[in-house]
Amino acid sequence: MEKLYKNYADEIAYYLNQDKSTQFQKSFSTGTLNESVNKIPKMSWLDKTKNEANFRSLSALDSITGIPRKYEEKLGAHPSFQHLKNTETGEYHYIVSMFIDVKNSTGLFKKYSPDIVAGICRLIQNAAIHTCWHFDGYIHRLQGDGLMVYFGGRGISKQTSVENALLAGAFINYFVKNDLKDLFEQKGVSRIYTRIGIDFGNDDATLWHNTGIGDCSEVTTTSLHTSLSCKMQAQAESNGIVVGDNILPFRPHHQDYFKYKKYKTNGEEKDYIYEISTEGFKYKQYDFNWERYLRNHPKIQDDGNGGLLLPNTVQPNIHIQNNISELERNATGYKPYFK
Amino acid sequence: MEKLYKNYADEIAYYLNQDKSTQFQKSFSTGTLNESVNKIPKMSWLDKTKNEANFRSLSALDSITGIPRKYEEKLGAHPSFQHLKNTETGEYHYIVSMFIDVKNSTGLFKKYSPDIVAGICRLIQNAAIHTCWHFDGYIHRLQGDGLMVYFGGRGISKQTSVENALLAGAFINYFVKNDLKDLFEQKGVSRIYTRIGIDFGNDDATLWHNTGIGDCSEVTTTSLHTSLSCKMQAQAESNGIVVGDNILPFRPHHQDYFKYKKYKTNGEEKDYIYEISTEGFKYKQYDFNWERYLRNHPKIQDDGNGGLLLPNTVQPNIHIQNNISELERNATGYKPYFK
Repeated sequence: MEKLYKNYADEIAYYLNQDKSTQFQKSFSTGTLNESVNKIPKMSWLDKTKNEANFRSLSALDSITGIPRKYEEKLGAHPSFQHLKNTETGEYHYIVSMFIDVKNSTGLFKKYSPDIVAGICRLIQNAAIHTCWHFDGYIHRLQGDGLMVYFGGRGISKQTSVENALLAGAFINYFVKNDLKDLFEQKGVSRIYTRIGIDFGNDDATLWHNTGIGDCSEVTTTSLHTSLSCKMQAQAESNGIVVGDNILPFRPHHQDYFKYKKYKTNGEEKDYIYEISTEGFKYKQYDFNWERYLRNHPKIQDDGNGGLLLPNTVQPNIHIQNNISELERNATGYKPYFK
Repeated sequence: MEKLYKNYADEIAYYLNQDKSTQFQKSFSTGTLNESVNKIPKMSWLDKTKNEANFRSLSALDSITGIPRKYEEKLGAHPSFQHLKNTETGEYHYIVSMFIDVKNSTGLFKKYSPDIVAGICRLIQNAAIHTCWHFDGYIHRLQGDGLMVYFGGRGISKQTSVENALLAGAFINYFVKNDLKDLFEQKGVSRIYTRIGIDFGNDDATLWHNTGIGDCSEVTTTSLHTSLSCKMQAQAESNGIVVGDNILPFRPHHQDYFKYKKYKTNGEEKDYIYEISTEGFKYKQYDFNWERYLRNHPKIQDDGNGGLLLPNTVQPNIHIQNNISELERNATGYKPYFK
C-alpha cells in the first residue's frame, strides 16, 4: 500500500533537492526562450490534471466528496451562504472553524529561491486543501501557506461536521509530522510544522454576513468561536491541534483524547481562553491527541513503522463513485519525482 | 473642518451604544416580519451609496484614486498580475506588502451580540479599506477584521508605493488611536488597537504566481519581504508600525523617524529579524514614528487638540475629479448617528 501522501512528499523532495540558484525557467523552459524569460519563469507546478492525480494517494481517505464541485467553490463564499454576498442580510447558522498555520516556512528563503519556496509552500497547502475537501471542508481563505476552513453548512449535521474537522486536522498534521519530517531533516532545513485550532460555534452564536466593499468583499462569520479557533491555533504545540470546549460533547466516548490546556498570553497562564465574568461564562481549550485518535480509529491501521494504513475503499462515498474513472484516466500520466 | 474619520467614528459610536440584547431586526426591521426573521437579521450596514458618502470625510486625503475602479478590484487578484490566475506562469515584480491587524476585537463579544460586533469590526475594516484605496493600495485579503494590502504594481514607481504605504498605515493608526480611543473608553470596552507591518520586496526577490486549486485559488506573492511584513506586524506596539530595512532608503531625509528595534521571538531578543549567515545577510526592523511623520508632513496641520487638519483639496487627483460630483450626490442622504 502506498504512503498516504506519497505524491506530495515526492514533489516536495524534488524541490528540496534544488538550491538557491534554481529558477524554473532553467529546468523547465520549453524552448521558447526570449529576453523576458528571466522575469517570467514557468512554474513546474502541478496542473489541474496532476492535482487530480494527487488525489489518488489520498483516495483511501474516508468521506470523499464530490471533487469537481469542490473545484468550483470560491474563496470567501461558502456554498450555503453565498447568497449573502454584497447584501445587508445576515443569517445565524452553526459552523466549525479551523485555522491551519504552517510555521517556519520563512526559513526556506535561507536556502532556496522564491520559485522553490513557492513550490514547497504550495504543495503543503494543496495537501491541506485536498485533505479538507476529502472531509467535505470548505476552504474559506488562503493565508500565505496556511488556511482557514469551515466544516458544516446547511443540510450537514453538526456531528458530521465536527468529526470531519477533527479527522482532516489529524491527517494534515500526520502528513507534515511523518511524511515531511525526514525530508526536511535530510536537507538540513529547519523543520516546518503545523499548528491547528478548531472550534464549534452554535446556531445562536454564529452570524454569517458579507464584509468588505464592492468586489473587495467576502461572506464570512462573526462568532466568538471563529475568533477563538484562530487564537487556539496560536496556542498549539508543533504539529498540535487545540480545540474548544464546544467540541467535546460531540465525542462523548473520547474525552480522554482531549487534555485541558491553560491559555498562555503575554507570558502568563490563564485558566480559561475566554471569560465573561458578568455572565459566569468560562471557556476552556484542550490539546487534541490526534495521533492516538487516528491510531484507534476503527478504520485505520498502524503499519508498525509509525505510518498509517487505510483500506483502499472505506465506505465509498456516492459522489466519488462518479469521479473514480475520470480520476484514474487523469492519473495515468503521473511520474513521481522521488527515486 | 470635519474630523477626518467622522462618519466611521459616528457609526461605531452608534453600535457601542447598543447592548447584548441588540439584534438588528429589532431596531431595523422594516415591517415584513415573519417567522424566519430571527434567523435573518437585517444588518444596518452602510450600503454602497453610504460607503461612498463615507469617503467624504476622507476626501481631504491626498492621492485619491479612481474609486469606481477600486470597487471592482477583487480580492486575491492584483490588477497588474491577475492574468496569472490559474496559470503555471510566475512573474518577478517588486511590491510593498502591508499587514494590518486589529487587536482585542474578540473582547467585544463580552458586551455585544455578534450583530454589533460584526458592525463595529466591519466599520474599522472599511475605514482601513477606504484609506488604503485613497493611497492607491490594493486589498489582497480580508483577515477577520484585519487586512493584507499591496502598494505598487506595473507602471507605479517604487518611491510612490512606499510613500503611499507609509501614509496609509499612519492614517489608519491615527483613526484607531485618536478617533476611536475615547469612544471605547467611554463605554468601558477594552481598547481596540492596530498593529501594522510594512516591507518592500524588490523586483528580483518577489515572485507573483497563482496558488490554490480551481476556484479555490488566488494570485499572490512569494517573497521573504512579504513574509517579514507579516512578522513585523506581530512585533509592533499598540497602534504601532514596524517596517523593514528596505523601506529606509526611500526616505533618506527622514531616517530619524525610524528607530531600530530588536526582534522578539520566544521570549528572547535578536539583533536581526532575519539572518542568512552563509551570505552575510542581516535584516533589521524599525519602529516607524508615524505620528511625527504625519505632523511634520508639509500638507498636514495639527489642530492643537491632538487632531489633524488637512486642506479640503490637496493636489486633486485626476481620477477623483470625475467622481466628485457623483460622490456629492450620493452623500446627500447621509445622516450621522452620533449626536
